[in-house]
Amino acid sequence: MGFDIELYLSTRKKIIDKKLSELILVSAESMSRLKESMRYSILAGGKRLRPILCLAAGEFVGGTIEKILPISCAIEMIHTYSLIHDDLPSMDDDSMRRGMPTNHSVFGEAVAILAGDALLTDAFLMVASEGISNGLSPSLVVEVIRDISKAAGSQGMVMGQALDLALEGKEEVTLELIEEMHSLKTGALIQASVVSGARIGGATDSQLSQLRQYARFLGLSFQIIDDVLDIEGGSEIGKARGADARRKKATYPTLVGIKKAKETAQKLTEEAIFALKDFDEKAEPLRQLAYYLGARKY
Amino acid sequence: MGFDIELYLSTRKKIIDKKLSELILVSAESMSRLKESMRYSILAGGKRLRPILCLAAGEFVGGTIEKILPISCAIEMIHTYSLIHDDLPSMDDDSMRRGMPTNHSVFGEAVAILAGDALLTDAFLMVASEGISNGLSPSLVVEVIRDISKAAGSQGMVMGQALDLALEGKEEVTLELIEEMHSLKTGALIQASVVSGARIGGATDSQLSQLRQYARFLGLSFQIIDDVLDIEGGSEIGKARGADARRKKATYPTLVGIKKAKETAQKLTEEAIFALKDFDEKAEPLRQLAYYLGARKY
Repeated sequence: MGFDIELYLSTRKKIIDKKLSELILVSAESMSRLKESMRYSILAGGKRLRPILCLAAGEFVGGTIEKILPISCAIEMIHTYSLIHDDLPSMDDDSMRRGMPTNHSVFGEAVAILAGDALLTDAFLMVASEGISNGLSPSLVVEVIRDISKAAGSQGMVMGQALDLALEGKEEVTLELIEEMHSLKTGALIQASVVSGARIGGATDSQLSQLRQYARFLGLSFQIIDDVLDIEGGSEIGKARGADARRKKATYPTLVGIKKAKETAQKLTEEAIFALKDFDEKAEPLRQLAYYLGARKY
Repeated sequence: MGFDIELYLSTRKKIIDKKLSELILVSAESMSRLKESMRYSILAGGKRLRPILCLAAGEFVGGTIEKILPISCAIEMIHTYSLIHDDLPSMDDDSMRRGMPTNHSVFGEAVAILAGDALLTDAFLMVASEGISNGLSPSLVVEVIRDISKAAGSQGMVMGQALDLALEGKEEVTLELIEEMHSLKTGALIQASVVSGARIGGATDSQLSQLRQYARFLGLSFQIIDDVLDIEGGSEIGKARGADARRKKATYPTLVGIKKAKETAQKLTEEAIFALKDFDEKAEPLRQLAYYLGARKY
C-alpha cells in the first residue's frame, strides 16, 4: 500500500514536539521554576496520540498542518496537565511516567499542581490567540474551544478521573460503569481531538459524524489495551506494571478476563475502521492509526 | 449623591449568586461528589468582587447585565478554582476560608484538585457557549477568552502563585518583587474582569485604556489592604489572622510598616479614581467601588 505508519507517526511527532518546545520557553527570570516544570512534562516524550489524530482528521478533510497545529498542541497541553494531576500523591500517587520521574517527584507537589493549572489555562490562550493569528474564523475558534472545554471539564475528562477515583476499592463495579468512566476520562478528549481537527479542516456535518464514531470506538479500544498492558506489562507504558491491581482498581480485563478484553479491543478497532467505510484512500492514515493503536504490544 | 453602594453591591451579588447557583447543579447520579465540591466552593459566600467589577465596567460603557453576566460568572469560577488550589496542603495549607472549612478539608485533596480543574475548564466552556447564545460576536468571545486565559495562566495568576510560594521564607524580598507578585497573582485577573466587561459593553479603545489603569491601581490597593487585614484581623477575612507571619511571608506591610502600607493603599485608591477623571456621573459605581474597597475594615 505504500503507507508507512511508523514513518508517518515519527514525522508527525517531530512537528508536534518542535511546536510544543517553542511554546514553553524557559526564561532566565527568578520565576522560571514553574515554566521548567511545565516544559519538563510537555517534553517528556509522549506518543502525541491526540495531536496526531487531530492533524490526521483535519488533513483528511482538506486542512493544512499549519492551521491545525496550534490547536493540536493545545490538546496535548491539556492531556499533559491531566497526567501531572493524575499522578499526584492524593490521586494515583505514581512516581514514574513514560520512564521518567513524575512531575511532582521532581518539582514538588505545589509546583506540579501549578504547572498543570498553567498548561490547562495556556491551552485556551493558545487556541484563542494562535487560532486567530493563523487565519481561523472567530466562530470556528469558539466552536473548537467549546468542544475541547466540554470534553475536558466536569462533563468529560475531570468527571472521568473523579469517577475513576470513586470506583477504587469498590465491590460490584459493572462493565457499564467502567465503560462510562473510560468514555469520560479518555474518550471525550480523544473524540474532541478528532472533531476539532476535522472542524478546522472544513469537514461537512456528515464527515464530522462519521469521524466522531471512529474516535469513539478508537478511544474505547485504546483504554482497554492500556488496562491489559497494565497487567501484562510492556515497554511502552514506562511505569511499573500492576499499578491498577495494587490500587484494587477494577478494570475491563479484571472483569472479563484478558482474553475477552483483547477480543473486545480488536472488535472496537474494527468498528473504528468500519466507521470510515464511506471514505476513500485519503482516510488511510486514520485507518492505519487505528490498526497501529489496536496492535500495541500486548 | 443618592448612590447607595451597599445596596448596589448586595443587588449585584444576588444576581451573580443566582446565576452561579444555576450553573452547577448537583445531579442525583453516582458521580455527583465532584459537582458537590464545585458547588460548595462556588457558593461559599465570596464578595464577588471580580464579577461585580466586570458588570460595573460593562454597564458603564453601555452594556446590559444579561450580556455580561455569564462572562462575569466565568471569571468568578476561575477565581474560586484558584482559591481551592491555593488552600491545598502542599500550597498555603489553609483549613478555613470565608469562615468555612476549605474545600479539601471537606472533600479531600483529590476531589478538591479536580473541582478546581473542572471550575477552570468549565469557565471557558461557559464563555464560549453562553457568550454565543447570548448574542456576543464570535470575535468578541475570542478576545475575552484571550484576555482571561492570559490573565489566569503562566503569564498571570498561576505565575503569581508560583512566585508567592517561591518567596516564602526568603530573605531580601524587595518591594518591587512583592508588587510584581501581586500584579500577577491578583492584579491580572482583576484587570481582566474590568477589561472583559468593558469589551462586552462596547468600550472604545480610549475607555478601555482608562479602565485598565483604574483596575491596575484598584488591584494593587486591594492586595495591600488584604495583607494589612491579615496582620490586624477583621471579620471579613474569615480565616485566622497572622497566616502570612506564620508562613514567614514578606508582605507589603511587613516591609514598610502598617502605617505606610495603609497610606499607600489610600493613595492607590485615589489614583484608581483619578484614572476615571474624564468620565461623567455614569462612572459613579466604579468610583464608589474603589472607595468602598479602599475603606475595608482595617
